[in-house]
Amino acid sequence: MKDIRPIKWNQDDPFVELLEQRLLPHEEKWLKLTTHQEMADAIRDMSIRGAPAIGTAAAFGVALGVMEGSDLEGPAREEHFDNICKTLAESRPTARNLFDSLERMKALFEKNKDKPFKELCKIMRQKALAIATKDEMMCRAIGLHGASLLETDTGVLTHCNAGALATTAYGTALGVIRGAWEQGKRFHVYADETRPYLQGARLTAWELHEDGIPVTVIPDNTAGYLMRKGKIHAVVVGADRIARNGDTANKIGTYTVAVLAKEHNIPFYVAAPSTTIDTSMDDGDGIPIEERASKEVTEIHGKSIVPEGVEALYYGFDITPAKYITAIVTEDGVQKPPFDFKADFKK
Amino acid sequence: MKDIRPIKWNQDDPFVELLEQRLLPHEEKWLKLTTHQEMADAIRDMSIRGAPAIGTAAAFGVALGVMEGSDLEGPAREEHFDNICKTLAESRPTARNLFDSLERMKALFEKNKDKPFKELCKIMRQKALAIATKDEMMCRAIGLHGASLLETDTGVLTHCNAGALATTAYGTALGVIRGAWEQGKRFHVYADETRPYLQGARLTAWELHEDGIPVTVIPDNTAGYLMRKGKIHAVVVGADRIARNGDTANKIGTYTVAVLAKEHNIPFYVAAPSTTIDTSMDDGDGIPIEERASKEVTEIHGKSIVPEGVEALYYGFDITPAKYITAIVTEDGVQKPPFDFKADFKK
Repeated sequence: MKDIRPIKWNQDDPFVELLEQRLLPHEEKWLKLTTHQEMADAIRDMSIRGAPAIGTAAAFGVALGVMEGSDLEGPAREEHFDNICKTLAESRPTARNLFDSLERMKALFEKNKDKPFKELCKIMRQKALAIATKDEMMCRAIGLHGASLLETDTGVLTHCNAGALATTAYGTALGVIRGAWEQGKRFHVYADETRPYLQGARLTAWELHEDGIPVTVIPDNTAGYLMRKGKIHAVVVGADRIARNGDTANKIGTYTVAVLAKEHNIPFYVAAPSTTIDTSMDDGDGIPIEERASKEVTEIHGKSIVPEGVEALYYGFDITPAKYITAIVTEDGVQKPPFDFKADFKK
Repeated sequence: MKDIRPIKWNQDDPFVELLEQRLLPHEEKWLKLTTHQEMADAIRDMSIRGAPAIGTAAAFGVALGVMEGSDLEGPAREEHFDNICKTLAESRPTARNLFDSLERMKALFEKNKDKPFKELCKIMRQKALAIATKDEMMCRAIGLHGASLLETDTGVLTHCNAGALATTAYGTALGVIRGAWEQGKRFHVYADETRPYLQGARLTAWELHEDGIPVTVIPDNTAGYLMRKGKIHAVVVGADRIARNGDTANKIGTYTVAVLAKEHNIPFYVAAPSTTIDTSMDDGDGIPIEERASKEVTEIHGKSIVPEGVEALYYGFDITPAKYITAIVTEDGVQKPPFDFKADFKK
């Protein structure tokens, strides 16, 4: 397996290296980020995306932000820190992992805010790196647990990109696929292209092709027909936020795939680290669903696909009610319904 | 209502004018076709598309083809005619209307093949024009019958383009929408963009916008979420071929929309003239589903959206079993299940 990592902390000369995902798969351009504002911009503009990767990006962003405040002490330092968190929190609303990282960084800051600047920076940086490392470990555990769900000689459908590029490394849904593949199982992956950002066509296809796992891209409108033809035997997707009862926010179109899977009696699996679970929400109704600009749908490669004066709706996510989900795979194992995630589930 | 017509017979200096639909909505370019081979190419390359429009195009193509054979008589004339029909029949496989037109033109040719060349040409041309006129009349009847199915203050979803551009004029699914609108009903139309050819974004949005009917484009993966939010109250689509039992082949993604409609208890309507009905098929299993080139999915505006070495599947159509269909609207009225279309249904 190729070791794909979309975000890295450069230790020697502190900055963050970030793979510009909007240019993939045709160009591998690395951005150099030195401020929390640059990180917030990169998240908002989707240079980095995928809930667990956004979690790591937010932690790195806070660490960069703290380093920006060398001349600040006392209340000024606290105000600066609040601004860092606010800026990052406002970048995108749906991914739980972003807020999980901010909460962890905030708690650590509270304990250490009066320490000398250099020591504070080191503490915050180490925590950010620990968050990243833990994300990778969780993904690898998801892969090990989830591998049992896939079988040889089957077709596996995934939607969007819940791969290494959506995490610190290895992936969640693609972690399950990689885990099964590494155990010697052989199957064919169908990747929904996932309009409009085309995560499936651009990113999932790239990752799997790099790893030698056979993948075919399909338009988002084709999954139903493939299921009816008997070509799909399991669906694995990631998640942006999971409520206590298992209701799952994930990339727009996930709900449609879940309904189709139910209609065809195909198992529908969600793979996510516990940092994606929001135990403060009883169900999915309260999960904020991002609406993005019409233009991101109506323009492709800089050219409009609609008549002048017509707009498009771009919901970034949808909610899949728990009743459509066969199992949720976390670092703790494969959970079957009824789901009831407790606050102490998150270590 | 604007009188949109994608294909016209120029009577004075005989040729066919055809609106190049691949360039819409940004450019209105008219092609001038003088041979049956040009017509077959235009159908295959989707300069014209939509089952009823293809039916008219095939009839016009045969008339052009007969006019090409001024120096032919007897067996040579018959051989030429067979070649015309073969060339047109091989252009695209799924739309029933293409074969319906060829059968009608063939029957007429059989009766008149020994007539003087000029007389034969006139007879064939008049039949082609009659097929076109009848298609328009059927669409207007569909609009009148189907208007009762839509209500004010609702959201109406359509997939692909079953509009004036997909017929001789007025449209089938959009005929229903136009019919209801002309009766004073006021609603909002959501148009699936319909990858990869983007019939919804480019053509349906254009037609409705021209007629002042409010329309919003959505990615194909968004319909499920909109239904769950209660924004969709009816679905109307066209058809490329309908089997005797009501099983319906239509643009890829139609089946997915039908499954979603069923899950949300939303009525799902199919609108098509009787020329789309194939009474020789008991059910949808035998309907040939066109597979088109991977490249038509993987390239947008001339630029690839997938990594090198990765391919996409492009099924042009899927089959929606009759059990998902609330009603089929033809020129004869609104038919409810169980469907059992007889051969004598087609006048």
